[in-house]
This record gives sequence, C-alpha cells and structure tokens, in this order.
Amino acid sequence: MRTRPLKVALLGCGVVGSEVARIMTTHAADLAARIGAPVELAGVAVRRPDKVREGIDPALVTTDATALVKRGDIDVVVEVIGGIEPARTLITTAFAHGASVVSANKALIAQDGAALHAAADEHGKDLYYEAAVAGAIPLIRPLRESLAGDKVNRVLGIVNGTTNFILDAMDTTGAGYQEALDEATALGYAEADPTADVEGFDAAAKAAILAGIAFHTRVRLDDVYREGMTEVTAADFASAKEMGCTIKLLAICERAADGGSVTARVHPAMIPLSHPLAGVREAYNAVFVESEAAGQLMFYGPGAGGSPTASAVLGDLVAVCRNRLGGATGPGESAYAALPVSPMGDVVTRYHISLDVADKPGVLAQVATVFAEHGVSIDTVRQSGKDGEASLVVVTHRASDAALGGTVEALRKLDTVRGVASIMRVEGE
Amino acid sequence: MRTRPLKVALLGCGVVGSEVARIMTTHAADLAARIGAPVELAGVAVRRPDKVREGIDPALVTTDATALVKRGDIDVVVEVIGGIEPARTLITTAFAHGASVVSANKALIAQDGAALHAAADEHGKDLYYEAAVAGAIPLIRPLRESLAGDKVNRVLGIVNGTTNFILDAMDTTGAGYQEALDEATALGYAEADPTADVEGFDAAAKAAILAGIAFHTRVRLDDVYREGMTEVTAADFASAKEMGCTIKLLAICERAADGGSVTARVHPAMIPLSHPLAGVREAYNAVFVESEAAGQLMFYGPGAGGSPTASAVLGDLVAVCRNRLGGATGPGESAYAALPVSPMGDVVTRYHISLDVADKPGVLAQVATVFAEHGVSIDTVRQSGKDGEASLVVVTHRASDAALGGTVEALRKLDTVRGVASIMRVEGE
Repeated sequence: MRTRPLKVALLGCGVVGSEVARIMTTHAADLAARIGAPVELAGVAVRRPDKVREGIDPALVTTDATALVKRGDIDVVVEVIGGIEPARTLITTAFAHGASVVSANKALIAQDGAALHAAADEHGKDLYYEAAVAGAIPLIRPLRESLAGDKVNRVLGIVNGTTNFILDAMDTTGAGYQEALDEATALGYAEADPTADVEGFDAAAKAAILAGIAFHTRVRLDDVYREGMTEVTAADFASAKEMGCTIKLLAICERAADGGSVTARVHPAMIPLSHPLAGVREAYNAVFVESEAAGQLMFYGPGAGGSPTASAVLGDLVAVCRNRLGGATGPGESAYAALPVSPMGDVVTRYHISLDVADKPGVLAQVATVFAEHGVSIDTVRQSGKDGEASLVVVTHRASDAALGGTVEALRKLDTVRGVASIMRVEGE
Repeated sequence: MRTRPLKVALLGCGVVGSEVARIMTTHAADLAARIGAPVELAGVAVRRPDKVREGIDPALVTTDATALVKRGDIDVVVEVIGGIEPARTLITTAFAHGASVVSANKALIAQDGAALHAAADEHGKDLYYEAAVAGAIPLIRPLRESLAGDKVNRVLGIVNGTTNFILDAMDTTGAGYQEALDEATALGYAEADPTADVEGFDAAAKAAILAGIAFHTRVRLDDVYREGMTEVTAADFASAKEMGCTIKLLAICERAADGGSVTARVHPAMIPLSHPLAGVREAYNAVFVESEAAGQLMFYGPGAGGSPTASAVLGDLVAVCRNRLGGATGPGESAYAALPVSPMGDVVTRYHISLDVADKPGVLAQVATVFAEHGVSIDTVRQSGKDGEASLVVVTHRASDAALGGTVEALRKLDTVRGVASIMRVEGE
C-alpha cells in the first residue's frame, strides 16, 4: 500500500459534510485498505468558521473555498455545498488545479452536467455524483456501469422522500394534503418552505440526470415536464383504491416505442398496488428500471439524510481515489445517442378522469363522443349520481397527452359537464 | 474512438452465451460507443459444433476452448460454461495469455475465487462476475464499489428463483411442497433434478460470494451453513401467517454484534410481511443490505434466465474493455479484513418451534423449564389441544443456534413431548 496519503478537500460541512468527515476519521483504516492508500482531510471550507465541529481539527477549517481548491496538492474535492454558485465555479477551478470531484449537487448536475463533464475531461479528471440522485441508493453506478451492455427503456422513480412521506400518510390515514404536509413538517421530513419538494423541482432535477444516463442523451432540466402533488386529494386516493392503485409522485424517463426519442416527466400518478413501487413507504426512495435484456429491476433505500448521502459520497470517493492511484479515470458523460427529447404532448399513457356532470340522460353519450372525436379510447366508465348531481369516472386506454389535453378542453365546454374534478395518469401497468 | 476492435472469446454458447453473442451483434454500435472501441466476437467454444446457432458465424465456432484462450490476441474471455472444470483451467490459462475474464460461474467463484483473483492480479488482468449472483441484479458492483466507503453489517437475500417460486406458490395457494415443486417443474422454473436449488447449494455459493465482498473477508463455501427448504410444510405457512409472516429461503451474511467475526448461512426463515423481501414474488430475486451509513437498501430483479444473465455479463464486458483501453484494472479481491467466520452455533436469532405434546397439566411448565435451563428466553407460547393430543408453539427471543439446538435436544427427551413438528428461524425484524 502507498503510504503517502491522498488529500481531500471538503466543501461544505453541514449535515452531509460533517458525516463525510466523521466517517473519514473513524473508518480511516478501512478506507485506506480499500483504496490502497490513506486518505487525509486536507481542508474544510465552511461559511461559519466559528461553529464548533466535533472531530474536525479547527486548523483545517477555512472560509476561503477558492484558495482551498486552488492549493494544487488536493487530489479530490468533495462538494456538498449544494446550489449553483459558488459550487459550479469551485468545481471547475478544482479540475483546473488538478483535483477530481465528488459532488452531491443534483441541481447543479441537472443544470450544468454537460459543461462540468467537459471540464473534467479537459483536465483528465473524474466527476462522480452518486449522491445527487436518491441518496444512498446505488443508482448512477448501476445505470452507468452495470447496465452499460443493456438498453434501458424506462425508469420509474420515487426520488423525493418528502413527497412520498406525504402521499404515504394520505394513503394510510385518509388525511388531506395539508394535514399530511403539516405532519411531515413536524417530523422534519419537509422543510419550512416545501416548494422544491412538493412542486416537483427536486424530482425533476433527478429525472434529468437519470434520463441523461439511462438514454446516453443530454436531457436538460427544461426538457423535464413537471407537475407537483399539492392538488392530490383524499378523493383521488379513494378513486385510486377503487382501481386497485395508490398514488405516487413519479419521475418517469421513457424511450418512445419506436426508440427514436425520449421523454422525462415528474407528476403524481396512480400505480397498481401490485407494482413494486406501490409498497415503498414513508420517506424511502425507489427506482424501477425496465431494460431490454435485464428486464425489471428495482433499487430501494433511503433517499436523503446525512449518513445515507455520506455513504454515497464516500463510495464515490473510494472509486475516484482508486482511479487516481491507477492513473485512470472512470466513465465520463455518455451522450453519444443524442436522441431528441420530446415534449409532454407526445407522452403516451393512460388517464383516470373524474367529471362532475349533470344528472340527466344523454350525458354519457355526449362525453363519450368527445373522447372519440379526439381519438382517446375509453377503457371503463363509472357513473354515479344523486340529487341532480352526478359524477363520471373515465379510465382511458393509452393515448397521447396532447390528445387527452384536447379532450379535456372540449369536455369543459360541454354544458352538461360542470367541472373536471381530477385528471390523473395511470402508470406501471 | 479507437477503430481496432477488442477481441472477445466466448466459452459456452447455451442459454446465456447465445444471448451474449446476439446482443454483441445487434447492439454493436452502442457497445462500441460506450466502450470507446468496437468489440468483436473472435471465437466461440462449444461442445457440440454441429448445432445450428443463429446469428453466429460458423467459422468462429470451435470445440478447442484451450486453443481459443491461448491465441494471445484475445482481450476478454467470457466464461459461461459453468461448473468447476474445465472452466477453472480455461480462466487461469486466459490470464496467462493476456486476457481479462468475465464469468457467470457462481460455483467456481465461490469455491476458487481467491485463487482466481490471485491469478488475475499476477497477470494484471480483470476478473468480473456480476452475473454469478442474482442474475441481472446489479449487486457485486454496488457492494464492492458503491458501498466501498460504508460498513455492511448484514445481507439478507432471496438469491434462488426456483425456491422462491415454490415458496410463493405454497404461500399463495396453500399447496404442499411437492405440489408446488411439480408446478415449478412444469413451468420450467425447476430443473428435472432440483437438488442444487431446493437443498440450498446454489444459494450457499452465492452467500459465500456475497459475504466475502460485503465483509472484505474470504468466506469459503464450507463456511456457509446450509439447510434446504424441502421440509417446509403448508402447516409452517399457516403458522407464519399467524405470526404476520411469510417463509422465504434466505441467504444471510452477518457481522457479529461485536464486529469481530462474520457468519454466512442459507435456510428457510419466517420474515414479517412488512419486510421488503416478503413482497418478492414468483422467481424474482432480491437482496436486502443493511449498512452503517446507508441504512437499508434493497436490490430487486430477475435472478436467472438467458437475457438477464447476459445483461450482467455485458455490463462487466463493457467495464473490463474500458479498463483495458485505459490501461487500468478494476477493484480486485478485497479480503484485508480477514475476519474469522464463525460456525452456525454462534448465530443469534429468534426461533419459532412447534411441538406435539401430551395434553395434560404441567407440560408447559416442563417445556418452559427446558428453555430456561438452556438460557433461551421465551417471547410467546400458544397452546392448543384436543382428544389427548396438543400442540405448543413457542417463539423465542434472540438466542444462539447452539443454545436452541441444546434446548431442542433436551425437549426431545421429555416423555411429554411426542415430537418436534418444526423449527424455523425468524429473521428481518
């Protein structure tokens, strides 16, 4: 074993960073044995230098992250600051000064992954980010390496623990959205401002990263259709149960049936209770992958938290250190397929639509005609009514989102349709 | 991209090998883009050269596997023959003649993994075998690489599809073992001689491989305690249901509580219905991993079959080819921890024991005394009886297998105990 240590600069020492530092210290002998050389924490860049950080030598702490990544003797920079800047500039500066980078920064990778990979390649360095998607769950590496000889056709993921906790609570207790959100907040599963989670921004960043790797195609954050889950109601869960389904916020990356394009989207969807993702409870994450040769795979585990995220960061750190010792780099960006990313209108799936309608003869015929005129084939209809009010629940066969959108627009114009109570996609069948 | 192709020799062209060859042909452009150079099938060693093999150039087919691996221009040998010899000699010969090796051979890796890794190292070559455990499920790579910065404490796996199919059928339909085995055989899930599956030999080989990688310790096949599932009865499933459990054949690799030793074992066990492994149906495999930082992870997918196994082989092939182009090798054997492997008697778990006893006063007291004398603490007891016959179901707290064994031996000697109907371990709680 080499005795001269590899030097690691840690950018950020919050929930994840402090756990990375702790494990680097307490498991130093194991890490050294697995890497083939010791690793040494050479510096820790923080915003608040005066905060007491147990187990971290105060002499290593600095507020000057730029100077740290420019030192020139750093082998690996671990970036767990999050956000776009200064993380982006620090990472490109690190490459230019000879370091490889391990990052947990989903927002940055989703937005600027291509440019960062190019910077890494230019300097012959590694950029690893297993922790950016689904926390501790090995996902980037399996998709990029284990399935490198296969053709991935679909990725269906529960990649946000906050929203899964909320939806699971609604499903289990019958609570409404606000009540379940309040519980999640009280238990620390939701942030004070839950927008990034409940509106699907967090999941959309992960979808962009997953789609890019799965399809060997650059997928920009703007390419990802995004719909939050704040409008999911207890009534939707009741409808789902009648269908033998539950509701999950899914990140869905799909190759079109003809293979010529891909789509990426985040929205709530009904999935059958028999689907492996339906049983993913609380704040757990899981990603279901359908590929040509392997078939159906699922990866399950904690999607967030200091320790789980640190586990993923340290796995990358070991890999990057091994590469460095071996004079090699790991697989970089693979975007050779360069498939077009289609808009949401091209997505083909099934729909569950609840309509409030007038309780009089002929309404079903009118509604069915509108579906037919837009080329959306109906699978089942359920009609119920009392006191002049009635509801129609329509479940369609597979249709394009554009055709469904046109159908709904036309339905809203019917005198006999008083409102469209909900539209929910049905996935995983 | 390099234009000179990497040359691949395929040893074996059965269900897996023919699928590997097919995908290498149909997906040649994708493989080349992902590797950075084309890969070329340079030779296929078979036993029956006259069999028609669709899509394979007859000029590539040979019965002389030894000559093929000795050619000297082969970059990667893919071994999908199975069994110990001639696979072992062919693999070491391949290393000596400059090739890296991808193998799907669980029996060989479990028995001779250390020697084969040493041979690979000696020649600076790679030995990869993702397909040897749980077919298409990325498992070796996540354990070896993604969790390289973590400490794995337990691996609980359903790693044999045949036995899971049989147990799932027994659970779902109430069928007995023989009836469920017959169905599995008729559907092609069980071989004509199912011994390797139902007696746990196949799962034991996988347990040895998983334990070795998880604990960075050599675990020999002989170190793995093995108990088949042929004696699981419909009555056991009824008992399991009463406990809120189902029964699975599990491969269990554990680090002792004090961290100083490890154990590996295969046996049927009750697990709670709430455990993610309980929902693994039909012939699917799944491996549940508990690690210090990541927490609970699960990997799920098809554990066998030509295409899924080929997916794993090709993922390894891409990795080995990349390593070769980069002049590097991937992570080899990691056995530095060299922890002692404890015998089954040291395993600590809970037990569900059904006793047939005389239906008279004082029996429970006698039985409870035997448990107490052996230091096995009882959690619950359920007594039922009619017509002079009675049964006692005892569920224990955690106790060592040795203590439980002593207890059972003493129980058998009691006049009032007419028989020990079943003993089943309870896991995953």
